[in-house]
Amino acid sequence: MGDRIAIVGGTGDLGFGLALRWAARGIDLIIGSREQTKADRAVERLLERVPNATVEGLENGAAAAAGDVVVVAVPFSGLVAIYKSIRETVTPDTIVVDATVPVEASLGGKATHVFGVWEGSAAQLGLAFLPKGTKMCAAFHTLSASALEDDGGPIEGDVLVCGNKDGKPKVKELVEAISDLRYVDAGPLENARIIEPITALLIGINHRYKVDRAGIRITGI
Amino acid sequence: MGDRIAIVGGTGDLGFGLALRWAARGIDLIIGSREQTKADRAVERLLERVPNATVEGLENGAAAAAGDVVVVAVPFSGLVAIYKSIRETVTPDTIVVDATVPVEASLGGKATHVFGVWEGSAAQLGLAFLPKGTKMCAAFHTLSASALEDDGGPIEGDVLVCGNKDGKPKVKELVEAISDLRYVDAGPLENARIIEPITALLIGINHRYKVDRAGIRITGI
Amino acid sequence: MGDRIAIVGGTGDLGFGLALRWAARGIDLIIGSREQTKADRAVERLLERVPNATVEGLENGAAAAAGDVVVVAVPFSGLVAIYKSIRETVTPDTIVVDATVPVEASLGGKATHVFGVWEGSAAQLGLAFLPKGTKMCAAFHTLSASALEDDGGPIEGDVLVCGNKDGKPKVKELVEAISDLRYVDAGPLENARIIEPITALLIGINHRYKVDRAGIRITGI
Amino acid sequence: MGDRIAIVGGTGDLGFGLALRWAARGIDLIIGSREQTKADRAVERLLERVPNATVEGLENGAAAAAGDVVVVAVPFSGLVAIYKSIRETVTPDTIVVDATVPVEASLGGKATHVFGVWEGSAAQLGLAFLPKGTKMCAAFHTLSASALEDDGGPIEGDVLVCGNKDGKPKVKELVEAISDLRYVDAGPLENARIIEPITALLIGINHRYKVDRAGIRITGI
Repeated sequence: MGDRIAIVGGTGDLGFGLALRWAARGIDLIIGSREQTKADRAVERLLERVPNATVEGLENGAAAAAGDVVVVAVPFSGLVAIYKSIRETVTPDTIVVDATVPVEASLGGKATHVFGVWEGSAAQLGLAFLPKGTKMCAAFHTLSASALEDDGGPIEGDVLVCGNKDGKPKVKELVEAISDLRYVDAGPLENARIIEPITALLIGINHRYKVDRAGIRITGI
Repeated sequence: MGDRIAIVGGTGDLGFGLALRWAARGIDLIIGSREQTKADRAVERLLERVPNATVEGLENGAAAAAGDVVVVAVPFSGLVAIYKSIRETVTPDTIVVDATVPVEASLGGKATHVFGVWEGSAAQLGLAFLPKGTKMCAAFHTLSASALEDDGGPIEGDVLVCGNKDGKPKVKELVEAISDLRYVDAGPLENARIIEPITALLIGINHRYKVDRAGIRITGI
Repeated sequence: MGDRIAIVGGTGDLGFGLALRWAARGIDLIIGSREQTKADRAVERLLERVPNATVEGLENGAAAAAGDVVVVAVPFSGLVAIYKSIRETVTPDTIVVDATVPVEASLGGKATHVFGVWEGSAAQLGLAFLPKGTKMCAAFHTLSASALEDDGGPIEGDVLVCGNKDGKPKVKELVEAISDLRYVDAGPLENARIIEPITALLIGINHRYKVDRAGIRITGI
Repeated sequence: MGDRIAIVGGTGDLGFGLALRWAARGIDLIIGSREQTKADRAVERLLERVPNATVEGLENGAAAAAGDVVVVAVPFSGLVAIYKSIRETVTPDTIVVDATVPVEASLGGKATHVFGVWEGSAAQLGLAFLPKGTKMCAAFHTLSASALEDDGGPIEGDVLVCGNKDGKPKVKELVEAISDLRYVDAGPLENARIIEPITALLIGINHRYKVDRAGIRITGI
């Protein structure tokens, strides 16, 4: 994969966990943050863990401009602001991958509850602020940040990917770059409405089973 | 398990598939239908497949009255009528297990779309028509009727069970009576809102992957 | 207005009430029904009340084919079937006006509760089954059928109309043909999501205030 | 009315507009804010407009403690934090009146779109953070802040009030203290799900009709 992957919100738990895994596989990364200094600090943290990583820290807008694929991993409360900040910088060829869950906790409520989104899902709300024709997918919602951050070991589970057909092959590569994750084609972007809330369900299962990495697998395929 | 299990809607695909599996395990069954003759025919069909089954056919109301556990497996369009018909016959000790998915197809629309339900979920809509204090769970949504009906083989996947705490142990027994299904405690009944739509997602995956039994498994627990 | 107005579901309370009012204004009408005989009987009933009406009874598909404007006034449970039945017969010039409310009562539940619709609203669900480019509006949800059916008197209230811009002028004419109704431009079709449930609210108000024609008016415009 | 009315979020447009009107009627007021200094400044502003007002400025928690009726008029994004902050201070006798609209604009999105709330509505989300048994109503959503702030003139429109029966008489008094507003009993709190989004509809109507005070009136009662 010769592409540069920009992780907008790359200083957060999920974004940084993905960065660690992809950096370890030699993928060329950009960590985006609202502030350059935060991005720089995340780059430092990453280099401590993966010394030979190819990684740069940038503000979100610049990160989105530089990435061939832009992964957005931000809290729901910041979603619209983030998409507005990258609106001008994504190109018609950019593949945008949203991992947002509209969890009530993002406004102080329960992590096991979600909001309904007028546009259908958090991903579609984000898409509403991007140029028409942007290739948008939604993925990575159900991955455990703790599991991603753990050294070495493979991660169980599938990544349900929905969205633009032309974007999916690249997302598949990114999924399969993390052992043992499997890519599952979960249909059009509107299905994010079903997939995003699964994370809230898994948060409850984590709590009930006293684990930190409940995930999901599709059987029978 | 000495209990009698009534399957309201036991002549439908999911209900009959569950009946087959439970009958094969020697569980005492009642197949409920809106019409006695339909119930009788389903009993005949069942006895052809499981000759030594302990099974009786009854109208839904009578079925619900006779069951210690009442499993409701009906199309969403018939949900309210069914719950009204069993309202008078369930007892305070009855455990009711709803398997309904509010799929748009039940009104002629897409099987990959679902309706939102005012009460939160199909299960909670049903509960609204039962006496206060009824022990209600929701389960079995994501099971493939085809897989259940197939002779012999084990079924992959988990059954996500949410709802009343006092009802769950019985539902767990019913899940584990079907090899290789695993029971997963998915929290309070309100979580049916997240679980029910997963079936619509699996229907799309079945179509996309050209299979007929996509299911779900929780990893990391 | 030289147009022919087809009322699909014209034998129901709202549809027949609209027919009465429009017939009295000399508008050329078609009453559509699933069965020709039911359509014929509604035409007879209409002619008893409005002897000089210009009105024809047709099956829904034929009604939709013959109408310049097609008003759909059916219970939510029959919505998809109706739209499938008129799919082939509407032309690119037809203006379709949906008045459906996704009220829980259409499946046996409460008239004060509504379902959420995947496509956004009942109107948008209907639109999903029509040819691309169909000019669709939603209107007339909050009108009291009793008030429409009453002889003579004007009706208080506004009709909130959302949807296709090219369709709105015709809907405005139809609204203003009923004294004293006022047309209010309520924006794009997606706003039907807010307007449709208002009917459920009015049903509760009717009950609480022991009236049968609570309506809505926009003040300050 | 001898009660003290605390307006949590009383420095915002709607809260301050209500304060102006109630102060002019001699109602004993507390203006709550997250910061004491902001509350004090709002009190000053109020006294300039209504010199003989009985008004005190307090932090939100203290305001809620001192009020017999607590009106919550905050942006949706701050709702949960506010309810947590008053959770300890409301008493079993306090009547809480929520005016929140879960408008997408509160997270940077459109003012004409709303979020769906897991608990049913913004008001019910707030209630989830208050002690069991709290008397909660929802009201004042559709009032124009501009119209409230204007000197003198009466305001057209109804206030749809839903919620706790024991709370409603007090809310009715507060509505009728503002000329020419009319109180309409809009049923149980769950109806806030229908009422809150009407504000988003009115915002669109304001824009389309180039006005700033579109409101709603129930006809036929």
